[in-house]
Amino acid sequence: MKQTTIGILGGGQLGRMLALAGYPLGLRFRFLEPAADAPAGHLAEHDRAGYDDSATLDRFAAGVDLISYEFENVPVAAARRLAERVPVYPPPAALDAAQDRQAEKRFFQRLGVATPPFAPVGSRAELEAAVAQIGLPAVLKTRRLGYDGKGQFVLHAPADIDRAWAALGGAPLILEGFVAFRRELSILAARGRAGEMVFYPLVENHHRAGILRLSLAPAPALTPALQAEAEQIAAQALEALDYVGVLAIELFEAERLETRGLSLVKSHELQASGLQPPASSLVVNEMAPRVHNSGHWTIEGAETSQFEQHLRAVLGLPLGSAALRGVSAMVNLIGVWPEQAAVMAIPGTHLHLYGKAPRAGRKLGHVTVRADDERQLQARLAQVQTLVWQSENEATEGTENRA
Amino acid sequence: MKQTTIGILGGGQLGRMLALAGYPLGLRFRFLEPAADAPAGHLAEHDRAGYDDSATLDRFAAGVDLISYEFENVPVAAARRLAERVPVYPPPAALDAAQDRQAEKRFFQRLGVATPPFAPVGSRAELEAAVAQIGLPAVLKTRRLGYDGKGQFVLHAPADIDRAWAALGGAPLILEGFVAFRRELSILAARGRAGEMVFYPLVENHHRAGILRLSLAPAPALTPALQAEAEQIAAQALEALDYVGVLAIELFEAERLETRGLSLVKSHELQASGLQPPASSLVVNEMAPRVHNSGHWTIEGAETSQFEQHLRAVLGLPLGSAALRGVSAMVNLIGVWPEQAAVMAIPGTHLHLYGKAPRAGRKLGHVTVRADDERQLQARLAQVQTLVWQSENEATEGTENRA
Repeated sequence: MKQTTIGILGGGQLGRMLALAGYPLGLRFRFLEPAADAPAGHLAEHDRAGYDDSATLDRFAAGVDLISYEFENVPVAAARRLAERVPVYPPPAALDAAQDRQAEKRFFQRLGVATPPFAPVGSRAELEAAVAQIGLPAVLKTRRLGYDGKGQFVLHAPADIDRAWAALGGAPLILEGFVAFRRELSILAARGRAGEMVFYPLVENHHRAGILRLSLAPAPALTPALQAEAEQIAAQALEALDYVGVLAIELFEAERLETRGLSLVKSHELQASGLQPPASSLVVNEMAPRVHNSGHWTIEGAETSQFEQHLRAVLGLPLGSAALRGVSAMVNLIGVWPEQAAVMAIPGTHLHLYGKAPRAGRKLGHVTVRADDERQLQARLAQVQTLVWQSENEATEGTENRA
Repeated sequence: MKQTTIGILGGGQLGRMLALAGYPLGLRFRFLEPAADAPAGHLAEHDRAGYDDSATLDRFAAGVDLISYEFENVPVAAARRLAERVPVYPPPAALDAAQDRQAEKRFFQRLGVATPPFAPVGSRAELEAAVAQIGLPAVLKTRRLGYDGKGQFVLHAPADIDRAWAALGGAPLILEGFVAFRRELSILAARGRAGEMVFYPLVENHHRAGILRLSLAPAPALTPALQAEAEQIAAQALEALDYVGVLAIELFEAERLETRGLSLVKSHELQASGLQPPASSLVVNEMAPRVHNSGHWTIEGAETSQFEQHLRAVLGLPLGSAALRGVSAMVNLIGVWPEQAAVMAIPGTHLHLYGKAPRAGRKLGHVTVRADDERQLQARLAQVQTLVWQSENEATEGTENRA
């Protein structure tokens, strides 16, 4: 058995966890990542370089058997160049579809999947027209390179147009209408080289300041109908992209949705009209053509982790079971760490640190809490969250004292 | 939070799995290991050097915060020298007790724990006297540096004395009587820096040609009484050694045991005497002051893996739960690999390869099979074993064809 070397574009925590899942499969790893102290660089070969230089890309391709990525903002041209030399999964076309918020929404619309209402914004005049068309509140977003709430501006009133344009004007933008949603969900799905698919149970996600804070797996009160709806959306996307690997799709469970079509009726309008709301349904927020933060719970909470699943898929190995192992919650550690020993003393907790230096708003690690039932999970999760909040408050106080 | 660097003496698969368990805790690893292509060297810093040179040891100690070992034949003098510079866990005294089969047996005898009958053998005359004292069959073993059945010679009849002496004579030896055992078991236990202890359920082990082939966790038909007896033995050993880390103790479940004292009555003698056999009981075979092959199932089959548990213990972190997650079996991959995709297609299987080149008798990896109940486990295990045997037979035929 020859040792297969996987090349990964990007060297952050997702790459690190891919490597940790891949070593037991006998794989070796090599990361292409411009940052010096990259989380994946501590435990694998690290080519410190960017993605724009052809000679760098060719050298990287020559040293690996297969290439994947751990972040979706790899230049598509780089992915295509690499794909001429070695297999690249997921296919570069998936990067293309996911990198531009407008292309992404149009992709789902073509599949007949609901998205929030949106309009492209290339000028100040187009922004005004978009606000008139979509209504407020709405979010102005850069079409490219946004993550964790960066590159976004929420407009509440027409007076916000000036400030929104001042903040983001210039780059290609998109205005997205608000969806009256009950909760945010995500589904992780995997597709193998032969087209076989596996779906993880829907997860409920909680964000703060645009950053994922908490995922509950499975999503509480998950019904088979809702799971089936999400799986159908994911299956359509996977097949349309001829996708290979793990794909994450973020969804809104809409409070009131007039049709599965394109236009959403906001809840206050529905209430004013006196109509009964239809059954809740799913609206796609965005997709990520990679392993995803809302899937970290799978390391302990599923029979096969999303990281191993991705590697199985891209290597043409049989996909693994996505069956749950109890119930899980994942808490992100943002900017500061809680007291390590205190977290590890809580039964069922599993700490994951990424080897990063602390910085405000930075994802430094996560804690997965696993339990046999919902009640036990809630008790353990409350303990973990208390420790995490304590550490965040202490960090904030520290900052204030210095100011 | 400063990044703690753990130094590990030895760089084999146990070290590799320690690192894989330790990265999520934010640790870094550095291995001292003379072999070039060491399994742990693929994913951590690797100082390629032996354990005999003081300058090497001092340099290694200077670059790490804490030292542990992944094999027990580290020279005790080296461990003691390192312990003058940085904390070394388990304590070097545990190495001392485990490295010499005679010292090890005397250690357990002092605790009042049963061992097989034994006698030291330093000369041909002493071998004859030992055979007369202990009876046959018996096993002549080197007192030091034996593993996986190496350095052993089984004597069935007095005529074997010549060949046994020819094979092993010269080194310090020990003759061990056979124990009429029902099955081989092992217990993994951990002790933290503050003296707290955690015990994993007893595991049933199956060897072939002196090499562990299969572990079943928990041991089938495990009774609370047997578990309690094993835990008491382990607790006594941990405390007597002021141990910190994971300790493995291999045990025989004796078929007939006259007393918990030193002398064992062989089953045919008991049958001849017409006596009723006493309740089954445990006899210590040997201990390993480290994580152990019979504990690999804990990666998926327990809430806390033995590798994370060892790191928790040596770092002074709270010990984790040793609770079972379903039932598990571990199959070692010796000399050859089975077809990777076929193994991974069996539900509940988890493949672990160590990145080693194949060689007859070499541990290349293991497969853990996890299931929700015993029946499901047996069905899955049968599939895995079929694949493993197929690969072994094909390898043997290949050798014969070449011959």
